[in-house]
Amino acid sequence: MKLPAVPQGFRLAGAACGIKSDPNREDVTLIVCEDEAVAAGVYTTNLVHASAVALNRAKTPFESCRVVVVSSGNANTCTGERGGRDSREMLELAAAACGARADQALVMSTGIIGVFLPMDKVRAGIAAAATKLGCDDAALASAARGFTTTDKFEKVAGRVVEISGAEVRITGIAKGAGMIAPNMATMLATIMTDASLTPDDAQASLRQAADVSFNAISVDGHMSTSDTVLLLASGRQSAAPLAGEDLATFQRALDEVCVELAKMIPADGEGASHLIALHVRGCRTQPEAQQIARKVGESALVKTAIAGSDPNWGRIVSAAGQAGVPFDPAGMSLAMNGHTIFQDGEPVPFDAAAVSASIKGRPETLVELTFSEGTAETRFWASDLTVDYVVFNSEYTT
Amino acid sequence: MKLPAVPQGFRLAGAACGIKSDPNREDVTLIVCEDEAVAAGVYTTNLVHASAVALNRAKTPFESCRVVVVSSGNANTCTGERGGRDSREMLELAAAACGARADQALVMSTGIIGVFLPMDKVRAGIAAAATKLGCDDAALASAARGFTTTDKFEKVAGRVVEISGAEVRITGIAKGAGMIAPNMATMLATIMTDASLTPDDAQASLRQAADVSFNAISVDGHMSTSDTVLLLASGRQSAAPLAGEDLATFQRALDEVCVELAKMIPADGEGASHLIALHVRGCRTQPEAQQIARKVGESALVKTAIAGSDPNWGRIVSAAGQAGVPFDPAGMSLAMNGHTIFQDGEPVPFDAAAVSASIKGRPETLVELTFSEGTAETRFWASDLTVDYVVFNSEYTT
Repeated sequence: MKLPAVPQGFRLAGAACGIKSDPNREDVTLIVCEDEAVAAGVYTTNLVHASAVALNRAKTPFESCRVVVVSSGNANTCTGERGGRDSREMLELAAAACGARADQALVMSTGIIGVFLPMDKVRAGIAAAATKLGCDDAALASAARGFTTTDKFEKVAGRVVEISGAEVRITGIAKGAGMIAPNMATMLATIMTDASLTPDDAQASLRQAADVSFNAISVDGHMSTSDTVLLLASGRQSAAPLAGEDLATFQRALDEVCVELAKMIPADGEGASHLIALHVRGCRTQPEAQQIARKVGESALVKTAIAGSDPNWGRIVSAAGQAGVPFDPAGMSLAMNGHTIFQDGEPVPFDAAAVSASIKGRPETLVELTFSEGTAETRFWASDLTVDYVVFNSEYTT
Repeated sequence: MKLPAVPQGFRLAGAACGIKSDPNREDVTLIVCEDEAVAAGVYTTNLVHASAVALNRAKTPFESCRVVVVSSGNANTCTGERGGRDSREMLELAAAACGARADQALVMSTGIIGVFLPMDKVRAGIAAAATKLGCDDAALASAARGFTTTDKFEKVAGRVVEISGAEVRITGIAKGAGMIAPNMATMLATIMTDASLTPDDAQASLRQAADVSFNAISVDGHMSTSDTVLLLASGRQSAAPLAGEDLATFQRALDEVCVELAKMIPADGEGASHLIALHVRGCRTQPEAQQIARKVGESALVKTAIAGSDPNWGRIVSAAGQAGVPFDPAGMSLAMNGHTIFQDGEPVPFDAAAVSASIKGRPETLVELTFSEGTAETRFWASDLTVDYVVFNSEYTT
């Protein structure tokens, strides 16, 4: 895979310090902002959350971010007072490694819940990453590996857009593959850009991008205790904070980067054999469309049907009906991979074998649900549910 | 299994007419009230629902019910205009078979979605059942078999209580084992009693009983298009409608019958290896306790952990945190099969091997979650999630 370029003003690296069982696998990442950067964040709404989430939430958005430190293999969640102390020490070490203050640092951890961080290893990992900082492909790749837990592949995406004559880069790293054994995996992402944004615009842009991307995916419907998406803006490529059309151009590119990253997560959902791409149209509002899409995408019956290449449309239609969104069933239509199966509330004859073959033959299954309530629409991406998912998640791990 | 007695005033039978693939398996049931009975009903809230649900909902509660007709193997859902005509014909045929009017009949169907009812078979089945009506064990057993689809066992429960010197019987039949392939299974139940109830009290009693039983279970979180629970009260054993303490005595027994029936459904959840019994305490309100219990009971990660006999408490705690109910995480405690694992927001040392062995060795896993918000509590029962579930539900069926 060709990696996108690292935006101007950032240096980063991953290092292996032994939090993970594989001693050669990166498990600490530092992302250093050469100068103070604007930082925004969106976080899990789970009441049970990591100390790192609370520490970041208290800071963002702000305009003096210097470093993000990430550890993987241990989520440092449900670890009480000591867990909070460990997260604060990570902030101090990361800040010291780049000559910044702890209040200029952000921290993310992902991995097993309820186990104290091995701080000796984390200290060594931060020190090692600090000696390797760079902005080339190798630096970006090692930083991305330092995010991962059970991911089968690193998740990096980028766009370059011209804004007011300058070449603006937006490059993101994400991780996540379901909350799976032996680690409770989490969705983490950090998007770097060399555009200039005010803290408020950075926060609003990230919120909008997250809503159409990271908030529109599901592996198993389980919200992690550590989910975090950060946006860092160095400002190197724009003279003043973006506004008007420039900000809209930036938003479109940011949305694209976040959607590209987000889709990689259910595609990498553990055990997943298909990415289910839902397109829900004709709703009164986008949140209602989203609510229907989520109910269908999180239905175990829909997920198992797709895993079995079965165009079992009754499951899709009945999942939509229980989403808590009012609609006229007589105005509902369904197509799978372009084959119309249900039209205006009535089943229509279709070639079941052809639809099944199309599901079987493609990594992505397109499910289009259309209603007659309005013009709002949404997209949503989910993993299917396979025997492998259950096997992975049933293994004795505690 | 020793069957409970059929309450006074009812005769019933199941007959095999070939809707199901096994020609010897009952697939039509008639429950005839010898005189007019009070009937109440609670139904699926799925917007996509069977014509039978709409027909019943328009009638209940009422006091002139004479017959309930049930067909299994075909849900007659998503079948448009013709499906509605077929349900109405079932009402007419059932009423004619016992000398009643169609407006005195109720109808339930369960099975595959989107396929027209084979009405020739249904007509023959209703006629055959009408010739077999009885009130002995054999009649009750055949009627119960006529409710089932993929159920591995018939579900019958009963209580006898003394109310004002009379022996009142409450006997129920249920079916359901998840919404599974090749049929979309549904939860259906009919409770018969020879107590006397006003239509309003019957409706209120059934609503209360359903909330603590049929609405407190989950196999796969998928609400069927046909879920229906009916209560029929013949009044044979009480001089006047129950009131005051007598009504409360009846309610307790009705709750017990419904809970016993309801627990059989996730215990029979297809592929299920454990019944997960959740007890959530210390909440502000019972609905909040229920919301937390449901989120935990429907979590694929919790269900797979129990299937693997894994006391993976982080999954339970984090599922509770995303239920949308505000609580103080520092006041949360968790015990599994009597072993305290998490106390006041902090993990406590526990013998993981002993807890795992206790899960492995018992058909039921007790999960107790305690909060510090109030005194409300609830119980909830769910299936675990096994490889067999996915295999069953992934098979090509359309």
